[in-house]
Amino acid sequence: MAHPLLNERDTEFFLYEFLDTEALLQRPRYSEHSREIFDATLKTARTIAEKFFANHNAKGDANEPSFDGEKVLLIEETKQSWDAFSEAGFLAAHCDFEEGGLQLPEIIMRTALAYVSAANIASASYPFLTIGAANLLRSFGSETLKGQFLPQMMDGRFAGTMALTEPDQGSALADIRTSAEPTGDGSYRIRGQKMYISGGDQSLTENIVHLVLAKIKGAPTGVKGISLFLVPKFLLDEHGQVGERNDVKLAGLLHKMGYRNTTSTVLSFGEDQGATGYLIGEPHQGLKYMFQMMNEARISVGAGASVLGYQGYVYSLQYARERPQGRLPSNRDPASKQIPIIQHADVRRMLLMQKAYAEGGLGLSVYATSLYEDQHSAPTEEQRQHAATLLDLITPVVKSWPSKYCLKANELAIQVLGGAGYIREFPLEQLYRDNRLNAIHEGTEGIHALDLLARKVPSKNFQAYQLLQAEIRNTVMQARDKECLVAMANALEAALEKLDETGMALFTQLQENVDRGLSNATLYLDVFGCILVAWTWLRQAIIAAKALDGTVSEEDANFYRGKIHTARFYHEWELPNIQPWIALLQSGNSLPFDMQESWF
Amino acid sequence: MAHPLLNERDTEFFLYEFLDTEALLQRPRYSEHSREIFDATLKTARTIAEKFFANHNAKGDANEPSFDGEKVLLIEETKQSWDAFSEAGFLAAHCDFEEGGLQLPEIIMRTALAYVSAANIASASYPFLTIGAANLLRSFGSETLKGQFLPQMMDGRFAGTMALTEPDQGSALADIRTSAEPTGDGSYRIRGQKMYISGGDQSLTENIVHLVLAKIKGAPTGVKGISLFLVPKFLLDEHGQVGERNDVKLAGLLHKMGYRNTTSTVLSFGEDQGATGYLIGEPHQGLKYMFQMMNEARISVGAGASVLGYQGYVYSLQYARERPQGRLPSNRDPASKQIPIIQHADVRRMLLMQKAYAEGGLGLSVYATSLYEDQHSAPTEEQRQHAATLLDLITPVVKSWPSKYCLKANELAIQVLGGAGYIREFPLEQLYRDNRLNAIHEGTEGIHALDLLARKVPSKNFQAYQLLQAEIRNTVMQARDKECLVAMANALEAALEKLDETGMALFTQLQENVDRGLSNATLYLDVFGCILVAWTWLRQAIIAAKALDGTVSEEDANFYRGKIHTARFYHEWELPNIQPWIALLQSGNSLPFDMQESWF
Repeated sequence: MAHPLLNERDTEFFLYEFLDTEALLQRPRYSEHSREIFDATLKTARTIAEKFFANHNAKGDANEPSFDGEKVLLIEETKQSWDAFSEAGFLAAHCDFEEGGLQLPEIIMRTALAYVSAANIASASYPFLTIGAANLLRSFGSETLKGQFLPQMMDGRFAGTMALTEPDQGSALADIRTSAEPTGDGSYRIRGQKMYISGGDQSLTENIVHLVLAKIKGAPTGVKGISLFLVPKFLLDEHGQVGERNDVKLAGLLHKMGYRNTTSTVLSFGEDQGATGYLIGEPHQGLKYMFQMMNEARISVGAGASVLGYQGYVYSLQYARERPQGRLPSNRDPASKQIPIIQHADVRRMLLMQKAYAEGGLGLSVYATSLYEDQHSAPTEEQRQHAATLLDLITPVVKSWPSKYCLKANELAIQVLGGAGYIREFPLEQLYRDNRLNAIHEGTEGIHALDLLARKVPSKNFQAYQLLQAEIRNTVMQARDKECLVAMANALEAALEKLDETGMALFTQLQENVDRGLSNATLYLDVFGCILVAWTWLRQAIIAAKALDGTVSEEDANFYRGKIHTARFYHEWELPNIQPWIALLQSGNSLPFDMQESWF
Repeated sequence: MAHPLLNERDTEFFLYEFLDTEALLQRPRYSEHSREIFDATLKTARTIAEKFFANHNAKGDANEPSFDGEKVLLIEETKQSWDAFSEAGFLAAHCDFEEGGLQLPEIIMRTALAYVSAANIASASYPFLTIGAANLLRSFGSETLKGQFLPQMMDGRFAGTMALTEPDQGSALADIRTSAEPTGDGSYRIRGQKMYISGGDQSLTENIVHLVLAKIKGAPTGVKGISLFLVPKFLLDEHGQVGERNDVKLAGLLHKMGYRNTTSTVLSFGEDQGATGYLIGEPHQGLKYMFQMMNEARISVGAGASVLGYQGYVYSLQYARERPQGRLPSNRDPASKQIPIIQHADVRRMLLMQKAYAEGGLGLSVYATSLYEDQHSAPTEEQRQHAATLLDLITPVVKSWPSKYCLKANELAIQVLGGAGYIREFPLEQLYRDNRLNAIHEGTEGIHALDLLARKVPSKNFQAYQLLQAEIRNTVMQARDKECLVAMANALEAALEKLDETGMALFTQLQENVDRGLSNATLYLDVFGCILVAWTWLRQAIIAAKALDGTVSEEDANFYRGKIHTARFYHEWELPNIQPWIALLQSGNSLPFDMQESWF
């Protein structure tokens, strides 16, 4: 079976029906573009994905990067994939013309990334991180720094990383110990160790631009003392060319369960004379800057998780259509022909659940990307602010929900194949191993849950939360126009009311005891996510129901019927699962909080 | 961190408090034994597990078996583990003295296996399969066949396999095509291909005894035409010694995501002159015989899944106690010391959930083993029948529930460690990969769901089901004596009533349309499993509450408090999850059944 990427019909649906990507052409920034240009761009991305990424997805997994003491060795196809992607201009697809970019909308660039992620999520990490690092440098770096490093990060000569985590602090950024000492010439000496740095070393590019969180000596304790530095692997000489090696050493490679062709590194900064680093922006504002890259990365992690879920879905679907096995329970004649396993109801359940998770996750991801776009290019300040506010609120969910449920989708994809799903002769077990990372990197699920409940929801007197509620209620109203959607609309509205009540109950609990009040935050994140995805599905169902009112081909009719049926499945089989969770949250059940260490 | 096996306190609890293993000493078969002998036996098993199995768990994963065209190569520690286990007599620990066994109770032999499975589930597969194959031969083979093969399978010279699955039929045993043709000398010529045969080739033993399902030419179609054959890798010569090679060839090794040190093979029988096979028992009764081995294997798969879940739990628990990171939300002082992550409520939630799943699964598994014991050695025929009836009913759940939820436990264990959980430098990702197999082999979850709903529950006018209900109600009654258990008892009783109603609703649906009526069987299995495990937890809580009434050490008091708290967690956080599932089942929701192939 060929490696399935994103089906064109699904891409078309998400870009031009679920989102109104064509409407972006009305915005001045995109006035020189057309739908044809968007589609041609994505066709190129698809071709690159098929030719240069899919070709070594399994090979990169089986032959993970190694370190010979001098150099990191990667299978050569990795370099070819990097070159193909950057030579096509995708690293700068979203940048302005005047900067040398293609000035394409965010959703087009992200869909291009989705194609290569679908083909090979590990090799896609290098461009993905480089784009984020370049964006961060563009937003906060000095003109000098930008002049020195940005062009090469946009054309693929340099790659970028984000270097946050350290061996002794993990998720607790307040406790990083990497230090920065001014040298007097405007640069800093950086010393410390960073861990789990993806792409921290490789042999793809002339140079690597590390964006490093460190504390300037004498800085305030905690997150208020964190600054952001650009620390290149190689220093630039006076002509701006790659010069001598900076004091950044690869202490070792880590060996992951999946995502293997992405190097995961331990980096030592300044073991000898100190690594030369350049301050980005103001001192002590580093975490605030880094949040731009982290937030972008979080949307991308959710999108990547969804794409992996989707890959497993389309693969197992194709397998289920082709693989004959067994008979229906009503057929007692063992001499009759075996049926394709898709005819077994339990297999259809597993496919439907995968579809619900994967296309729900994709819907959530493209919606987040559209908010990102609107935050920057919507016509009015009010619209930009509106989008920014909503995106800020839902980012923890956009990152976490697909990471959890699209992993579950991959678990189901394996189950559809049975023994074949479990062996490396088929691609599903790798998807599952790859996808397991997504609930961990860019903030674990628990961290995002705290962020959502303690910060995002109550922020500015629940302003963002109320905006979101209004958006969802608007969809509920629209859905009521269609007979076939009324039950879903009612279910979603009821869930939304429950979410409100639950929030109120939790904020009362929080007042009493903040530690106990936050102790079930992950459950709240799950409830929130389930409702958000139900909303995403209801929006898809509305589009489908409207389309079915018109004249459509039989193929399209089936496509839309599938959307409505899956939306119903999500509302009837998934949404009710939040009821017991809501009961636990509202009652302030504190069993995990109360559990004593000595009782384990 | 050392490799954690089963904690002795937990083993003691399950053997001597949850089960009354000492009471077995009253039965004539065990009258020559003592608690000291049981304990010494398990101490030996533990030592062997630590010394010969744990030592190569990671190594066997990293260096999976290979085939050089002639021989299967395994890392040498595998052979040492096999030898240590068999030389200690464990392959025959449960066999009668007169047969050369140790005549130990099933639970002691299975606990010994649990130790080695905890240390290295892949290398433990070889003894596990050999024990099952030998048991099958013992039950149904002729005296001649037993004389020829059993002693060597009991002392470790020969290993055993079960060869059921074929490339073109997977779970649908009715459709196997391997053929058997009488030769006239009492033996048969076997021809066909088998797939996913664990241990189908190896370099551990002088010979391998394959128990092969095949159809004698002219046999009835479907499962009624299946016969069981013993097909050795090497034929025996006239002196009963290993002689010439039989016509059984290794067509290839399969490459699994986990369980890697267990060979998974494609075997070709009779590519040349035909493989020589010996009929076991009567013609066409093969599947009935094989069910003995399958049912044993199913209990063991559930136990293995639970042990892997437990391994992840104790490892992540130890890590959480030792790893400092972050502060409580109430602590706003970034200069204060970091706390061990076990102090974060969300980490405690993940540990508590793992404990609930792992010790719930272990409880279910040891209960099933005790039924297996009673089925054979209980004093009265009525007791034996009672145990056999219950075991037959719950086997699908005993196999499936731990395979699903203890995988989830491993997923949580990884999450507790974060990045460290995802890399091969720590043992958790392997547990997760290993455990993913358990929902597939020995019957997929979907197959067991059909077995439970279509066969086991309605069997003999619901006789077994009613027995189980009575057992559970008995526990509910006992629990009501303890104030702290009343809420749990009520919750379980209510769930039990719901299960009854659900069963009735489903059987009505089944009458109308058997295909639709069975379409949600997996959901029913999940409901059933959740209730069974809640029962298992209530039994553990009763024991703990009684113990706390007496005088116990502080350490034991904490142990028992942990049991009660986890039982509450299961009843309050897990049991309510079945409510929406019950609603779906009772209403006959048929969305998966109704989903059309063309809508995907």
